[in-house]
Amino acid sequence: MKKIEVIQNVLEANQSIAAQNQLLLDNHKVLTVNIMSSPGAGKTSFILQTIARLKNKLRIAVVEGDVASTIDAEKVKNEAVAVVQITTRYMSENCTLIATMISRALQSLPLEDIDLLLIENIGNLICPSEFALGEHKRIVISSIPEGDDKPAKYPMIFSDADAVVINKIDLLPYIDFDISSFQSTLVGLNPKVKIFKVSCKTGDGIENWCSWLLNEKTNHQFKQTKKR
Amino acid sequence: MKKIEVIQNVLEANQSIAAQNQLLLDNHKVLTVNIMSSPGAGKTSFILQTIARLKNKLRIAVVEGDVASTIDAEKVKNEAVAVVQITTRYMSENCTLIATMISRALQSLPLEDIDLLLIENIGNLICPSEFALGEHKRIVISSIPEGDDKPAKYPMIFSDADAVVINKIDLLPYIDFDISSFQSTLVGLNPKVKIFKVSCKTGDGIENWCSWLLNEKTNHQFKQTKKR
Repeated sequence: MKKIEVIQNVLEANQSIAAQNQLLLDNHKVLTVNIMSSPGAGKTSFILQTIARLKNKLRIAVVEGDVASTIDAEKVKNEAVAVVQITTRYMSENCTLIATMISRALQSLPLEDIDLLLIENIGNLICPSEFALGEHKRIVISSIPEGDDKPAKYPMIFSDADAVVINKIDLLPYIDFDISSFQSTLVGLNPKVKIFKVSCKTGDGIENWCSWLLNEKTNHQFKQTKKR
Repeated sequence: MKKIEVIQNVLEANQSIAAQNQLLLDNHKVLTVNIMSSPGAGKTSFILQTIARLKNKLRIAVVEGDVASTIDAEKVKNEAVAVVQITTRYMSENCTLIATMISRALQSLPLEDIDLLLIENIGNLICPSEFALGEHKRIVISSIPEGDDKPAKYPMIFSDADAVVINKIDLLPYIDFDISSFQSTLVGLNPKVKIFKVSCKTGDGIENWCSWLLNEKTNHQFKQTKKR
């Protein structure tokens, strides 16, 4: 039982640091979004599309989580107000971002000058579901080529998401993917989930996602103002 | 440092059980292949294509690893000699198969009647790279829609593979994917890796993979016979 106890302790410690991160983010009115997906589902393209649509309305920073390489941070660095790269390869926890990593990243971000923080988690549908980071919203991107059975096969991450983005809908003509089956399994796991269908290649559907995000930003700001 | 020590112990214990598994498999001349990939890269389709081509030559069993559901095992059960499902959702290690899980699976497989064991690992490009199972060959499937940067971003799993299968090549006309860039990064990490380009949808390239596998099977059998 020793190992399970250790895991329990790790998760509890993580939860408490995540709560501290959220408090700091709330104090600076920074709405924070944790973006999770399989490798190659399109997290970076989705972040770039989001920044392109919203950069005239919000000051957006990005935390890039990767096992190795700075490929994604390079793509994002000229678009965001600030970018922090977290590379997990040689860390004891390498399959997901955890709250201590975000805590350190927040120290090097100009929180006073940021309205929205997008965290690109490690490409993984399992480990990130267990670790809160301090985020306000949890987003899962699932792409058409991955298949319509993903909510059934990785239920933890889908049942806990505020929104699920179905990406690469431009590939629907070439791939067997039953959108209604995907949606009904997903809603079965998570009745309140918001679903967006997008193509980060063509830009289809990004507008709807950005409207929702802007609305969440307004709600968050309002709540923080009321608190004071 | 306590946590890192625990992880070290877990990995060492895993290594020793993996060695026992391999000895058992060797004694029964069962060539065993650990098939790893991101979620939705096509592991199950690849296994089905492999069985379809080789079932008249080899008696093939499958171990299906999943976080949840028996969707893949259902697809495979009528094609293989035997199928064992391992579901990791409520295990302390849920993001990868580990050697103890395989040890238990081997107890319920008719090893005397099996020539080839295909293990479908959990859909994950990180955790499975750390845990040997007792396999003779490690295969990574990487699919075109995931993008050509995957070897740079997940180097551990690619640098340790005996073969890498580039799947979904039928989608090349619709997706930007630089095969030569993928291959040169991969060979940089792993100069001896064998590369196969396939489409599990059209069957393209499966023949080459199956010839290689049959050859590996013959070599393995010969080595075990000589040992006795």
